[in-house]
Amino acid sequence: MNLNRGPGLITILTDFGEDDWFVASMKGVIASLAPRARMIDITHRVPPGDIRRGGLALRCAYRCFPPGTVHLAVVDPGVGTERGVLAARAGGYVFVAPDNGLLSWILREEKDRTVFRAEKRELFLPEISTTFHGRDVFAPLAGRLAAGLPVEETGPPHPEPVIFTPPLLRSRGEGCWEAEIIGRDRFGNCLTSLTREAAGDGGAAELILTAGDRDLRLPFADCYGAVEDGGLLAVWGSCGFLELAVNGGSAARELGLADGERITLRLRR
Amino acid sequence: MNLNRGPGLITILTDFGEDDWFVASMKGVIASLAPRARMIDITHRVPPGDIRRGGLALRCAYRCFPPGTVHLAVVDPGVGTERGVLAARAGGYVFVAPDNGLLSWILREEKDRTVFRAEKRELFLPEISTTFHGRDVFAPLAGRLAAGLPVEETGPPHPEPVIFTPPLLRSRGEGCWEAEIIGRDRFGNCLTSLTREAAGDGGAAELILTAGDRDLRLPFADCYGAVEDGGLLAVWGSCGFLELAVNGGSAARELGLADGERITLRLRR
Amino acid sequence: MNLNRGPGLITILTDFGEDDWFVASMKGVIASLAPRARMIDITHRVPPGDIRRGGLALRCAYRCFPPGTVHLAVVDPGVGTERGVLAARAGGYVFVAPDNGLLSWILREEKDRTVFRAEKRELFLPEISTTFHGRDVFAPLAGRLAAGLPVEETGPPHPEPVIFTPPLLRSRGEGCWEAEIIGRDRFGNCLTSLTREAAGDGGAAELILTAGDRDLRLPFADCYGAVEDGGLLAVWGSCGFLELAVNGGSAARELGLADGERITLRLRR
Repeated sequence: MNLNRGPGLITILTDFGEDDWFVASMKGVIASLAPRARMIDITHRVPPGDIRRGGLALRCAYRCFPPGTVHLAVVDPGVGTERGVLAARAGGYVFVAPDNGLLSWILREEKDRTVFRAEKRELFLPEISTTFHGRDVFAPLAGRLAAGLPVEETGPPHPEPVIFTPPLLRSRGEGCWEAEIIGRDRFGNCLTSLTREAAGDGGAAELILTAGDRDLRLPFADCYGAVEDGGLLAVWGSCGFLELAVNGGSAARELGLADGERITLRLRR
Repeated sequence: MNLNRGPGLITILTDFGEDDWFVASMKGVIASLAPRARMIDITHRVPPGDIRRGGLALRCAYRCFPPGTVHLAVVDPGVGTERGVLAARAGGYVFVAPDNGLLSWILREEKDRTVFRAEKRELFLPEISTTFHGRDVFAPLAGRLAAGLPVEETGPPHPEPVIFTPPLLRSRGEGCWEAEIIGRDRFGNCLTSLTREAAGDGGAAELILTAGDRDLRLPFADCYGAVEDGGLLAVWGSCGFLELAVNGGSAARELGLADGERITLRLRR
Repeated sequence: MNLNRGPGLITILTDFGEDDWFVASMKGVIASLAPRARMIDITHRVPPGDIRRGGLALRCAYRCFPPGTVHLAVVDPGVGTERGVLAARAGGYVFVAPDNGLLSWILREEKDRTVFRAEKRELFLPEISTTFHGRDVFAPLAGRLAAGLPVEETGPPHPEPVIFTPPLLRSRGEGCWEAEIIGRDRFGNCLTSLTREAAGDGGAAELILTAGDRDLRLPFADCYGAVEDGGLLAVWGSCGFLELAVNGGSAARELGLADGERITLRLRR
């Protein structure tokens, strides 16, 4: 596929925040190399260095974009060390990211994928700083890909990119799973590793959540407003995961559940 | 008017924040359906569910945009319930929003307006989640409108959209009004319901503000720097409302005035 | 140079924050006057009125953009007073800003520059508020420049724009400088006034930092991860300045250094 025929669209996800000049510097480089590319921010508010959180945000957004979109993700606590640079084609999209697990969700879920070590120096800026590869390495690479560079020409195939162990999801019999908290959104909704696909749904009416030594009963609902204000509920979230929520409040705070915490989920009709 | 001849511009206002993937998901959907549309954020930092605050931000920004711009606003605490979806043409613009009062300012102030219930299912995404209509309902609708869909084809006319009671503004004789605080900006300036148009201006030199049992005298000034540092002032703000301000400080904090609080305003020459 | 042949790109930097309608209003005005211009945010989170901080962010970002880009910067505590409006060509770019020192870095460092007082009223909006020149004065000016207006036509040459005294940097013998803290980024890295160019670098291995009555030894490193977690280091930052950093922490907090604070820097091989 020649991306000259792609949409010339680049999404950008980083942990650089919005206080400084970092994201703008990346966009300037992209605008220089791909004058027609349009750029859309996913988020720049990933907590610094939080690869898992960044990966989840990318996982929840990327499929909304048109085929051929270049997804550029930079959460890179190892900047300046020997970690590699990935360029990948997966699910009809192109991805650029450090080889540190940030693309784990995509590389696990998209079966139709090819991954390359993007190591051709001439694709980066002529001068590469040691602390800002977002601008000097990743942005020029994404810009060139959006301008039509085939992914294959970024470097050799990479058979073993870093991919995190999938989140825990183990069936414990009919309607019961060992699972984990995979992340939270800013409203305090807790995303679990149980997907609607895995659960088969089937119209559960109640969730029994075991976290630590507590058992909690949560009604299943279609929307937050279906329970009283401040009430806990379980909902099939918009990214396909079972979510724990509090109507008008924060389930993360209410339940005190941390990312990665193990839980047991029982679905009752 | 056929919007194919419009500017292909979409503004977006939500309460989704910038920490997550929500706004980007909407933009991906829009980019898929309206590949040439350009998107400009108004704000995504409306306090969650604060329809009045979101409506005011939209009111203060929308007229700056070129005619034909599609204004997409999603502050939607009732997502998943039976609240309707509006598509409207007003003042030369197109609006898409939940039918919950978010467009109150526009629908009150723009006399040349037509409002439709956007209920044609085929205009939305094929699969509609119960918790994220921003992505599944509102974004595709806005994208199609920006790509040229006439507003009339979104559904039947809607004679009675939700419109909030206008903010209190009652004349109490020459130069005196009962009014209310309609909102604050991030600098702590308090916007009042008294417009320059209603007041006729006429070069007032002093404002006597009655809030609760306090009377305060504020000099009128053209700009914040016209009074001493920390000093209170009254100023005709850039959106046409009388504003209460503190030079280099926060009138909201200084005066302890809440949104919706009733005040009396006396203008003295 | 006719900017009709420029990239039609406008960067925007302000202290307006992202809570309100201010930045969007500016963008609406630009979109009205320069329908094809693309806009890229540098940052809108400059602390209110902090001209030095805004100037530094602009200094660190602007050269990443393609030649001909219009850089629009509005940090304008003197809005509504008699401060002037600048339009400048410098280093192949166009700049629009209040005449208050915000462009100091650019006007000091770019030798190939011409500065104009942009005072032709017809270039602004017909009605100019006293409190929001970002929308009424600066945005229309930037829009017209991006749409092709030559900088020369904005007003008469301005021989003496406001330019701040350069940050302190005085050689105290081989490898030793009196310098100052010029700013911090959101990670807490402290930028100093010592540039790699001035230092000649030469592979220093250690920095002796004197701040107040303290002497601290910091290893030079290529990247943050080269020292233990929580360890101090000196690094040549991505904008060319010597930076003081803490791996995984905040040097600004750790060292208690304020912007503008004087320090002594000794580089040891």
